[in-house]
Amino acid sequence: MSEDHGVSPGLRAALDPERAYELDRRHVFHSWSAQATVDPMVITKADGPYVWDRHGNRLLDFTSQLVFTNLGHQHPAVVGAIQEQAATLCTVAPSHANGARSEAARLIAKHAPDGLDRVFFTNGGADANEHAIRMARLHTGRPKVLSRYRSYHGGTQLALNATGDPRRWPNDTASTGTVHFFGPYRYRSAFSASTEEEECQRALAHLEQVIALEGPSTIAAILLESIPGTAGIMVPPPGYLAGVRELCDRFGILLIADEVMSGFGRAGEWFAIQRDAVVPDLLTFAKGVNSGYVPLGGVLLGEAVYSTFAQRPYPGGLTYSGHPLACAAAVATIETMERDGVVAGAAELGTEVFGPGLAELAAHHEWIGEVRGTGVFWALELVTDRASREPLAPYGGTSPAMTELVAACQRRGLLPFANANRIHLVPPLTITEEQARTGIDILDQALTAACAKLG
Amino acid sequence: MSEDHGVSPGLRAALDPERAYELDRRHVFHSWSAQATVDPMVITKADGPYVWDRHGNRLLDFTSQLVFTNLGHQHPAVVGAIQEQAATLCTVAPSHANGARSEAARLIAKHAPDGLDRVFFTNGGADANEHAIRMARLHTGRPKVLSRYRSYHGGTQLALNATGDPRRWPNDTASTGTVHFFGPYRYRSAFSASTEEEECQRALAHLEQVIALEGPSTIAAILLESIPGTAGIMVPPPGYLAGVRELCDRFGILLIADEVMSGFGRAGEWFAIQRDAVVPDLLTFAKGVNSGYVPLGGVLLGEAVYSTFAQRPYPGGLTYSGHPLACAAAVATIETMERDGVVAGAAELGTEVFGPGLAELAAHHEWIGEVRGTGVFWALELVTDRASREPLAPYGGTSPAMTELVAACQRRGLLPFANANRIHLVPPLTITEEQARTGIDILDQALTAACAKLG
Repeated sequence: MSEDHGVSPGLRAALDPERAYELDRRHVFHSWSAQATVDPMVITKADGPYVWDRHGNRLLDFTSQLVFTNLGHQHPAVVGAIQEQAATLCTVAPSHANGARSEAARLIAKHAPDGLDRVFFTNGGADANEHAIRMARLHTGRPKVLSRYRSYHGGTQLALNATGDPRRWPNDTASTGTVHFFGPYRYRSAFSASTEEEECQRALAHLEQVIALEGPSTIAAILLESIPGTAGIMVPPPGYLAGVRELCDRFGILLIADEVMSGFGRAGEWFAIQRDAVVPDLLTFAKGVNSGYVPLGGVLLGEAVYSTFAQRPYPGGLTYSGHPLACAAAVATIETMERDGVVAGAAELGTEVFGPGLAELAAHHEWIGEVRGTGVFWALELVTDRASREPLAPYGGTSPAMTELVAACQRRGLLPFANANRIHLVPPLTITEEQARTGIDILDQALTAACAKLG
Repeated sequence: MSEDHGVSPGLRAALDPERAYELDRRHVFHSWSAQATVDPMVITKADGPYVWDRHGNRLLDFTSQLVFTNLGHQHPAVVGAIQEQAATLCTVAPSHANGARSEAARLIAKHAPDGLDRVFFTNGGADANEHAIRMARLHTGRPKVLSRYRSYHGGTQLALNATGDPRRWPNDTASTGTVHFFGPYRYRSAFSASTEEEECQRALAHLEQVIALEGPSTIAAILLESIPGTAGIMVPPPGYLAGVRELCDRFGILLIADEVMSGFGRAGEWFAIQRDAVVPDLLTFAKGVNSGYVPLGGVLLGEAVYSTFAQRPYPGGLTYSGHPLACAAAVATIETMERDGVVAGAAELGTEVFGPGLAELAAHHEWIGEVRGTGVFWALELVTDRASREPLAPYGGTSPAMTELVAACQRRGLLPFANANRIHLVPPLTITEEQARTGIDILDQALTAACAKLG
């Protein structure tokens, strides 16, 4: 620790949670919100899967904040690495080199699908996707990027144009070269399919038609979350991603796997696309790479795209590319995941706890229309009626029933992730089986209570 | 420090600079570069205005890396704040609140132009500019944004479309709603002006014509670096920024000041636009806000734009908005700047050392066509011939003479910032007068040596 440890008057004052709240409301502009309606929870403390609010309540964090604290809060190995790197060398410009960045790149490439051996570091997922699209456009010389409806690719202009959820709508004024298609989603099939296999085949036939009608020679890339995240955790049916890969190969299109949310163990593999043994041309990551302890994202490049920029400059970059402090946190995160078998543990939590536990929940809650997921990446699709599948809140919106359900969880000590008519169960991968069961039990009680009130 | 301090095998191995270099060349994709030609300097250590390379050479850092280590390297107050915040709470989601973020917002607003009281935090300058443009478009309901030639606004798609330097060219395939105009730049006047006053008047008349011909009712914002940075540190003539403000007011256009490089003391004021007592509607920042120790940027909003999003949601956001670790570094940085009088010190370095020192340099080096700057933000414009003003390297390119000059500086222990035919002098604001003079002396010798070889 430096001699100045603890002497920042501002950080000392910031420990007063009432002051933190008051200053937030006075000076902080929040994401995706009507500012006058914002009433944030002040997080005063966090440990593993728990956070504490300013009234001293402890909450079991089933959100991993925004699905990024894959190792939970305040993991000592990552905190120690940040402190150590801070003491050594906080930052260098991207044109120089430093050990933390080199080592992070090595470890990320080590766990990536075969051949994705080069890492371009960004600050987060949005700019990772922007750079991947740009690399694909420059590599192919083609302008368009195809992505699916029901997807999220980030909050900057191009990343939003490619996004397929309602957050795109108010920002889609300057959309150039982004085209959307339907992906597999059997519960609300765009293809009138009744089996997984049928959904898969029809989704691939649909994509092939979109490619044909948009013009293969105009399409640089297909950008896909390996498992769509905030849009609903729709695990693709077996064969779908391999089918997309085959279409890409047939038409000279690059496949970009967006693993910002699904990567780094979340889906029970290092990267979700490895479930299907598919190798993309480019892969984007952020969040779990260092549990979000320091902002970091990036693009993994295969040899083909890398070669394009071997002798010809890549016309892109950013000030904090490969930031040493962020990379040190990534090194410690990945080492911890290796040492503690976190990825295998996540897979096991899925098969042993979440799968059976949520199936049981569905058996006695009429609101649950479908349970789906893998690893520590699960969604409950809630409906007012199982036959009609009428959602419990409209697409992109909310409803009194959903609001009550979230409040009922929080009153019982669970912080849930809600989006439209869905509850996602996305706690840290390091949660114990007992903690996972506790969360499911609280959700059980909250469903009973909310349904009794508003069902 | 945590119990795990020092035990990351990867970070320990990363201390070997040869390994750091080798892994960099094998796995790290660098910004703005042809990858096979990259030969980065491994920075093994840094302290104040100095960095050390892997051969043990100490270099005086006149770049502040990418003009962001405004407090120099490894400032103990900022390192201590990062370590303290890491031990307390590394991260929370943007929807929650935390003391470090609240306090950072308060301190940033405190030093901002009057009325810019709300802070939307981003990861860096590019996304800050993207969000500012989006806010302006949604606030005005108009599509276009005007920015100047010879400018840089960031590396994501929209930020690059708005950029007015050669980095835009290979990325301008999807340009929608960005229009460029000429700003004041007397040394290479676009208006055949011969005095500062004439340049100012003609530049404003030109901008008024562009507004009229593009259609005032189509223009959401004028985006301007208060002092263009990488494009050449062209300090605007007195009255120019006030004139732009007047045009904006007359036509209902928002003024966005890009202070990513010029802010936080660099120009001898907290924000460069304060030199002209002009208040923009939105102001973007990054870099100096926390000396780049943790990735951080943001948008300051005035009351008008804030009010637009009081009851109506702002449709934008990002995972790491208001990241506690980054905000803690900002709190400590701003407190240090206040306590040590860093802004006044920067102004004084400009008037006492850089201004006179560089004027003297110009007096005996024919290559120096113009010296310009303020605070710790200076440029030498180098020419082969003072009469014709032929640049020593072409626009957006380089030349043997520039390459030799940079090498001559480095051999003598100075790390210079070079862009096309310019050398920028942008060391940390905390550099001593003696260190500043040393840097100028080395540049003096390097100019003599390079000119003797290639002049």
